[in-house]
Amino acid sequence: MQKLIDKILKFGEVYPDRVLKVDSFLNHQVDMDLMSEIAEELYSRYLGTDINKILTLEVSGIPVACACAQVFNVPIVYAKKTETKNLPDDVYTNTVFKPNDKGYDITVAKKFLSPEDRILIVDDFLAKGYALKSLIELSKAAGATVVGAGIVIEKGFEHGGDELRKDGVRVESMVIMDEIKDDGQISFRN
Amino acid sequence: MQKLIDKILKFGEVYPDRVLKVDSFLNHQVDMDLMSEIAEELYSRYLGTDINKILTLEVSGIPVACACAQVFNVPIVYAKKTETKNLPDDVYTNTVFKPNDKGYDITVAKKFLSPEDRILIVDDFLAKGYALKSLIELSKAAGATVVGAGIVIEKGFEHGGDELRKDGVRVESMVIMDEIKDDGQISFRN
Repeated sequence: MQKLIDKILKFGEVYPDRVLKVDSFLNHQVDMDLMSEIAEELYSRYLGTDINKILTLEVSGIPVACACAQVFNVPIVYAKKTETKNLPDDVYTNTVFKPNDKGYDITVAKKFLSPEDRILIVDDFLAKGYALKSLIELSKAAGATVVGAGIVIEKGFEHGGDELRKDGVRVESMVIMDEIKDDGQISFRN
Repeated sequence: MQKLIDKILKFGEVYPDRVLKVDSFLNHQVDMDLMSEIAEELYSRYLGTDINKILTLEVSGIPVACACAQVFNVPIVYAKKTETKNLPDDVYTNTVFKPNDKGYDITVAKKFLSPEDRILIVDDFLAKGYALKSLIELSKAAGATVVGAGIVIEKGFEHGGDELRKDGVRVESMVIMDEIKDDGQISFRN
């Protein structure tokens, strides 16, 4: 998606360890026009797949997921992060694995996911895929069908997206970065 | 706003201590059609006020703020909640007071608020007004003008909204609840 590449090149800030900061249009200040264009692109890619729910994870996935909910004309559900050990029994839960960290739990109220659901999981970033894998497992626990994922920026060099594709998960990313060099130059996958 | 009242009466769940749970359409699963209608209503109420930025607080204010950003055709900025004591000096910060609790700090990167900004603060709920007051103070620290607030559900019986109006803050709420009775009956202000 050329417009997104242009935005990344113009406003993205590269930090050491291949960190890309895009808080001027994606995850602190948000350009909702861009989110709507991304939603339109995802809608065209997923045309005919009968998606009836958008699922994301708080916080930074919510704006693009809201735009998708409007374009797909379906509800959005956002999973909540929780540190509570004693969860009520009316939620589905899963743990997002983080190496060198204890990770965190995510929950969705059982009443908002069902075997009738055909879900598009939406998020702002995909790196190693820990959050996405957790959202997929949580959806499966509800008996729902995960039609696929819609990602704004995929860090291809972290391999989470390609691993999921190998496992048969449909992952549509608006841009895939294959490298961020030390001088800040970014290579995008064609 | 009659459609919102109908939604509250149909899907809202009343719990002890006048707690209203509306997680089926406002703050877990979200009805973006309704958020867009609320945004249109706020746009018409704030017509001619030259709002150039929507400000909210993560998490549950984000969906309605995103809808407003689209209708007003301006960016949204969401303040972040933080538990970090050592904040960088490139953020504005303010503490959200909570009685019987230590409260929490909110931050916005300085680059996203300026004296040129004319801000509409948007949130899902307004009760005692602690979060809203904190967002107003944070905006003022940036030299920005707070044109007003747009609230989905105001708990009138908590008096935060009326206190702010007395202080000269424009607060537009889509519904104001004046009472939630023990039997679950809700009185709406005309």
